[in-house]
Amino acid sequence: MSSNINKIGKSTVPRTAISTSDEHSITVRGQDLCRDLIGRISFTDYFSLLVTGQRPTKGDAMVLDATLVAIAEHGMVPSVQASRMTYAAAPDALQGAVAAGVLGCGSVILGASETAGQLFAEVHAGAGTGDLEAAAAKVVRRWREMGRPVPGYGHPLHKDRDPRVAALFRVAKEAGTSLRFVEIAEAVERVIPEVVGKDLRLNVSAAIPAVLLGTNFPLRALRGVPILARTASLIAHLTEEAVTPSGFALSYQATRELIYEGDK
Amino acid sequence: MSSNINKIGKSTVPRTAISTSDEHSITVRGQDLCRDLIGRISFTDYFSLLVTGQRPTKGDAMVLDATLVAIAEHGMVPSVQASRMTYAAAPDALQGAVAAGVLGCGSVILGASETAGQLFAEVHAGAGTGDLEAAAAKVVRRWREMGRPVPGYGHPLHKDRDPRVAALFRVAKEAGTSLRFVEIAEAVERVIPEVVGKDLRLNVSAAIPAVLLGTNFPLRALRGVPILARTASLIAHLTEEAVTPSGFALSYQATRELIYEGDK
Amino acid sequence: MSSNINKIGKSTVPRTAISTSDEHSITVRGQDLCRDLIGRISFTDYFSLLVTGQRPTKGDAMVLDATLVAIAEHGMVPSVQASRMTYAAAPDALQGAVAAGVLGCGSVILGASETAGQLFAEVHAGAGTGDLEAAAAKVVRRWREMGRPVPGYGHPLHKDRDPRVAALFRVAKEAGTSLRFVEIAEAVERVIPEVVGKDLRLNVSAAIPAVLLGTNFPLRALRGVPILARTASLIAHLTEEAVTPSGFALSYQATRELIYEGDK
Amino acid sequence: MSSNINKIGKSTVPRTAISTSDEHSITVRGQDLCRDLIGRISFTDYFSLLVTGQRPTKGDAMVLDATLVAIAEHGMVPSVQASRMTYAAAPDALQGAVAAGVLGCGSVILGASETAGQLFAEVHAGAGTGDLEAAAAKVVRRWREMGRPVPGYGHPLHKDRDPRVAALFRVAKEAGTSLRFVEIAEAVERVIPEVVGKDLRLNVSAAIPAVLLGTNFPLRALRGVPILARTASLIAHLTEEAVTPSGFALSYQATRELIYEGDK
Repeated sequence: MSSNINKIGKSTVPRTAISTSDEHSITVRGQDLCRDLIGRISFTDYFSLLVTGQRPTKGDAMVLDATLVAIAEHGMVPSVQASRMTYAAAPDALQGAVAAGVLGCGSVILGASETAGQLFAEVHAGAGTGDLEAAAAKVVRRWREMGRPVPGYGHPLHKDRDPRVAALFRVAKEAGTSLRFVEIAEAVERVIPEVVGKDLRLNVSAAIPAVLLGTNFPLRALRGVPILARTASLIAHLTEEAVTPSGFALSYQATRELIYEGDK
Repeated sequence: MSSNINKIGKSTVPRTAISTSDEHSITVRGQDLCRDLIGRISFTDYFSLLVTGQRPTKGDAMVLDATLVAIAEHGMVPSVQASRMTYAAAPDALQGAVAAGVLGCGSVILGASETAGQLFAEVHAGAGTGDLEAAAAKVVRRWREMGRPVPGYGHPLHKDRDPRVAALFRVAKEAGTSLRFVEIAEAVERVIPEVVGKDLRLNVSAAIPAVLLGTNFPLRALRGVPILARTASLIAHLTEEAVTPSGFALSYQATRELIYEGDK
Repeated sequence: MSSNINKIGKSTVPRTAISTSDEHSITVRGQDLCRDLIGRISFTDYFSLLVTGQRPTKGDAMVLDATLVAIAEHGMVPSVQASRMTYAAAPDALQGAVAAGVLGCGSVILGASETAGQLFAEVHAGAGTGDLEAAAAKVVRRWREMGRPVPGYGHPLHKDRDPRVAALFRVAKEAGTSLRFVEIAEAVERVIPEVVGKDLRLNVSAAIPAVLLGTNFPLRALRGVPILARTASLIAHLTEEAVTPSGFALSYQATRELIYEGDK
Repeated sequence: MSSNINKIGKSTVPRTAISTSDEHSITVRGQDLCRDLIGRISFTDYFSLLVTGQRPTKGDAMVLDATLVAIAEHGMVPSVQASRMTYAAAPDALQGAVAAGVLGCGSVILGASETAGQLFAEVHAGAGTGDLEAAAAKVVRRWREMGRPVPGYGHPLHKDRDPRVAALFRVAKEAGTSLRFVEIAEAVERVIPEVVGKDLRLNVSAAIPAVLLGTNFPLRALRGVPILARTASLIAHLTEEAVTPSGFALSYQATRELIYEGDK
């Protein structure tokens, strides 16, 4: 049978614990969408409920809101440019232009939140109840030996600490969530000059896991935070693009000094 | 010069009114991101600020939150399946799987919110201070004559009114925002049996513009609401997929009864 | 049952006439992939077989090859820029960067081939055995009245006829395929100055349907030609990007003259 | 200045050796597109020229054609399903549905060609002029110790050798290109039972680099081959979908046995 080619992996029956529905109701994470959630819960709390299966505490939600606000918008960055150029070329398909922007949330730019979170989780496990700075030095050294960059430190524009870092740390303090991973992030920052040989300061991509890992938000969903946040900003940019087009102007400017170095 | 091929359209200088930054600060819609926004504004309010340039009123924000919650999740719908299959095949690229899901927010499924909004705007303009039902009948008839479907009415599962409709209308009343477009949506529902010949009830895709057009949220950004909402749900599904894989099982089930009708 | 939400549309059993397989063989369009196709057919012929169900004649294949070669590459156009920026941000996911570039094959830029083909099909049907120029003038006038642009005429760089036009027309003559739609395309070009009021010359997007509609290639697959062609070019650009990065440089240049016109 | 945020990486001037153009001509890899390439070169040869900068020999082109034909189509696989579902939901944006399918060309499914190529390159370098089987055993053992799967061996449907393998090897012999990497691929197959403990046979994803690395096609562009090939097939499936819709039927079937295991 042709369909056997799709029998990849072990289970052949799909499962989900997120939601179900019948003709009269929709159940999400055990709650009635229309009665318990619409109008009763903010979108941020709902995002947390969808991902974790539980409503966040007030503090957890404050921190999640702050990280989404912090990372959503930073001007005409490459993913916004890609999105606006795509919209200019294909204005009938807003979803395509959003998707093109989302595709730029990769390992080099917005994905650093997730890898910084993994680094912090290793320091957390390695330190136990012991010294954070020693554990941080050990982990950073190990990552460097494996040829992995240290994610979340240094910024091409914000040479001092990225101003979003202090704002996020302030919110975590106000929210009363665990500061364990904030301390780890700062321990890593202190050991970087010696281990890496450069004075790289915390940027927003490290600050996000530093505050979120002190809440109920899971490490493995971390990359979702910049993706969701950036989607909000892409929609704003594309709404602007529909009225004040910049997509082709960006593309024109981008190639004004283009060097052709092939054969003529 | 090679770059001239990119000189498409009139303006060659890109412009934006959304944000700017320097080494020490990031300004978004005239506000200091780190001082005024992070920890001071919810993600929903920030989305509204990004799109419209203004903070929403409390009522406007309640309605926007409700629409985002209403449309985010409805189980293993086609776009979620496409996203989970993509993740199963390419687990290193979460952003790619999210993008694949976003690409299914098209004219047939999640894009109906925008076209329903256009329909309502035509009824609104046509009615002026006059009778809504007469204006609705006129507009629906015109759309039918042009061969356009009436977006936002009828649902394959929810034969009575989609339960999300009442929930959204309730929130709009509680929020105290304008009910003008709710009345228009209901006027359209009343004229459909006669004009279209079928008894199609309001679904969530019509309810969203019905409540949002009574706030400061612009018609031209309407399609962004289901896209942003669905992105939250896609991230939840992909976080689940990483632990409880269903992508390949969905694909296996999908083709169990596949009929090959080509030559052998 | 939850799954009823997916019962959209009439048929609930999927069908395909493209291919089937068992443990020992793969059948594509009625032919044995391993015995009859691999090593026996060019990729271009195979593309035609996949789309149409039949092997192209030698002339049909010559024309299809020529159109794919004509439209694949034209330097650092917006979709290539979007793709290279996406790769720079997410180098682990080549498929994501290709997808970002493909998303720019929209109605404004590469989609014009399909709409030009529709225009020509209307002229063809309208003319019957009669005068092409009169039929062309009628159709172009009708499109203009509906507010639709005339696709495939005019080019920002190539003010005279796009040089690819003559090359494609030459190939169609050499290949001996029908020149009916080439004549239609030229008839449209001749009536444009009077009907549109501007002297817009044929560009490659009109030349592609002009030659392809004279072969066995179907109108409804026309948009696939620039998409497939551009994919080849995107892979070349991304292979270059991996060695000679330009993605972030393009993005830097693009915003050097960026004007912020929002509040401070 | 705002734009400094885009000054990522070292070079701020973009460069390319692929193509350039002026008002009257387009130069690709040093050749005049309209005079030397359109109608003079097949799409496969042009793909090779774009990627490598040189026209392939006749043998190199035969092998590249064969790999593109071998990997383009294998029925309703997950990426085709994702693409057809996306098209059903968003039929106005063919490019979006193609992109959704391309996004499934990831590390698990179609990306194995590239990683198998890396494995073979390591065996090639390790063996020098010495014994291939010993070098293969060493490299496979090292990959297993690092927890990496051995890419390109084993297939859920084709338990014996995937039939495409013999077809590709036959073409390489007929084409007279180097068989060095075919020998390496077979050496790896012979050592797998002992090193891995399972009898996994060569599949198409290993056969592709086995034949292509014996031509002028570069290792780092290998992943482009399944992406380009699959794009041709996606266009065929979407052309079929437009006439014989299966997207929603696939989605309906996929969830018929869906298990909801969350709270009620």
